[in-house]
Amino acid sequence: MNFEMSSNPQPKVLLFGAGSVGAVYLYLLSKITDTTAVCRSNYDTVKENGFIINSSIFGQGVHFKPNVVRSCEEAAPKTSELYDYIIVCSKAIPGGVPKLIAPVVTPGHTAIVLIQNGVGIEDEYLQAYPNNSIISCVVYLPASQRPAGVITHGEVEKLQIGAYPSSASSVRAQAFTELIKSGGGTAECFDDVQPKRWLKLLINASWNPICALTLSKDTDVLAASSEATEVLLAVMLEIRDIAASYGHTITREEVEFQLGRAQARIPKNAGIEPSMLQDVQASRRIEVEAIVGNPVRMGKEKNVPCVRLEMLYVLVKALDIQISKR
Amino acid sequence: MNFEMSSNPQPKVLLFGAGSVGAVYLYLLSKITDTTAVCRSNYDTVKENGFIINSSIFGQGVHFKPNVVRSCEEAAPKTSELYDYIIVCSKAIPGGVPKLIAPVVTPGHTAIVLIQNGVGIEDEYLQAYPNNSIISCVVYLPASQRPAGVITHGEVEKLQIGAYPSSASSVRAQAFTELIKSGGGTAECFDDVQPKRWLKLLINASWNPICALTLSKDTDVLAASSEATEVLLAVMLEIRDIAASYGHTITREEVEFQLGRAQARIPKNAGIEPSMLQDVQASRRIEVEAIVGNPVRMGKEKNVPCVRLEMLYVLVKALDIQISKR
Repeated sequence: MNFEMSSNPQPKVLLFGAGSVGAVYLYLLSKITDTTAVCRSNYDTVKENGFIINSSIFGQGVHFKPNVVRSCEEAAPKTSELYDYIIVCSKAIPGGVPKLIAPVVTPGHTAIVLIQNGVGIEDEYLQAYPNNSIISCVVYLPASQRPAGVITHGEVEKLQIGAYPSSASSVRAQAFTELIKSGGGTAECFDDVQPKRWLKLLINASWNPICALTLSKDTDVLAASSEATEVLLAVMLEIRDIAASYGHTITREEVEFQLGRAQARIPKNAGIEPSMLQDVQASRRIEVEAIVGNPVRMGKEKNVPCVRLEMLYVLVKALDIQISKR
Repeated sequence: MNFEMSSNPQPKVLLFGAGSVGAVYLYLLSKITDTTAVCRSNYDTVKENGFIINSSIFGQGVHFKPNVVRSCEEAAPKTSELYDYIIVCSKAIPGGVPKLIAPVVTPGHTAIVLIQNGVGIEDEYLQAYPNNSIISCVVYLPASQRPAGVITHGEVEKLQIGAYPSSASSVRAQAFTELIKSGGGTAECFDDVQPKRWLKLLINASWNPICALTLSKDTDVLAASSEATEVLLAVMLEIRDIAASYGHTITREEVEFQLGRAQARIPKNAGIEPSMLQDVQASRRIEVEAIVGNPVRMGKEKNVPCVRLEMLYVLVKALDIQISKR
């Protein structure tokens, strides 16, 4: 036993949703915290072998072995060692997770960290845990897990962090930012992280459903018709207008820059398969509400015209329900 | 030999596109005309066994055996017996069929009958055959062919017929109408059949791409989100507005009636799989341009707002190209 450690114990971290993004951050945190992962489909493999991470940034063949449990019940703190952070990295499907993490959330103590896409995802946590810090994070970390336990991670890793709501104390958000940085990650804490959510949504709420519906990479959609570029731009401008109605400014130049990234990849034939397309191809449920439904409802609430986004919502919602019947 | 017949020979009819709709009309015409079918994927079966038609209207287990050829070259008239009618019942995919039927089209003699969905499909025939009658038909005949040579046909059969363009002589269109009626079919000749095309497009340009993109029956789309009904109505109203800009009036009541047909089937769980959905499921190319692309371009030409239809076009066009790569 290390007296230093026991007198100044490591923060205790639980990961809920041990997909590729969660595994990478748990790896970084495992260097400096006491980490446990709730694993579901990949439990047996990770319990036996831990994770292998092949990352352009953090190294190839990196092996790490967190404590693994099957559920939050199994992870519930039996001693006085309360969880300091619950990191939710599962897909943002509304309605279930706040209840699932209840056994590991200590009121007034545990910070709930949401590393998820979409907008409007925090409220159900705030309502369930009004006395806990909610930390909202926008993540840029292209990665996949295939087979179970083996993570492939590309050349970007960035976490944008803020308290939710932005008027709440940012003490825990700042502490979590420092923790990620201590682990070797790239994190920045913002007074209000919501504009960052909307900036990422520009890509997610447009390309994700469009590629999922057409079963196509982004560049293939652009190349398919002469009308596609204009339509994609129009969808992104609708998202920008909704963001603006909530006080989050995205410039037209930022919109055109984001669209231009896909356009620039056409000649290189370097199309991207957004996560929603990967989900459809694997017959997995898709994050319809967080990524498309919530912005549409927020837009309509403020009377912002968003008929293209609404069309995408109606389509991808029907597709998701169809997938759920498979 | 029947002298009556040889002095007053039967009309000579060639069917191009021996799908379910084509087979039913060829059966009706086979009673009173000399019929030949160009069969492609179903050649061997139809050559050997003919067609079996199971129809709610024309009877179950109806067997008929037309002359069958593999191509128009093979069907080219070797004697003075020119084809009086070429009936094109293939899918309306632009760019190829006018050339394919060239061996059987006699300038100034053969009437070209298009029994196909969509709008703007006639021009390529008119350009290729400026001295032939072009007869444009809107068909209501729910049918499928599975396995090859076996047709299942539901309870509707209706053909709406007109010369193309509507300013052209309608003599041949009227004669074809009488021919169908003589064979036992339901046909009506109109001075201008284009408004009928647009009325059918109300359903085809909306439900077809929406069901194909969502892999869902029409009722499942409506049930998937509270926004769906309003969006479907809006798409149909865009189609109505484009039709109006070309002088074809569809009332709002007609639009609501068409949408209501799907709504009424929700409680009965009697969803319909439009042909485009069936095509996607079978990895077959889809009639994107005739059904969605042409109306969008026609709408934009007249500055009619149709952003929802344009969105559907961009999506279903990308999907079609994706299918072509399978």
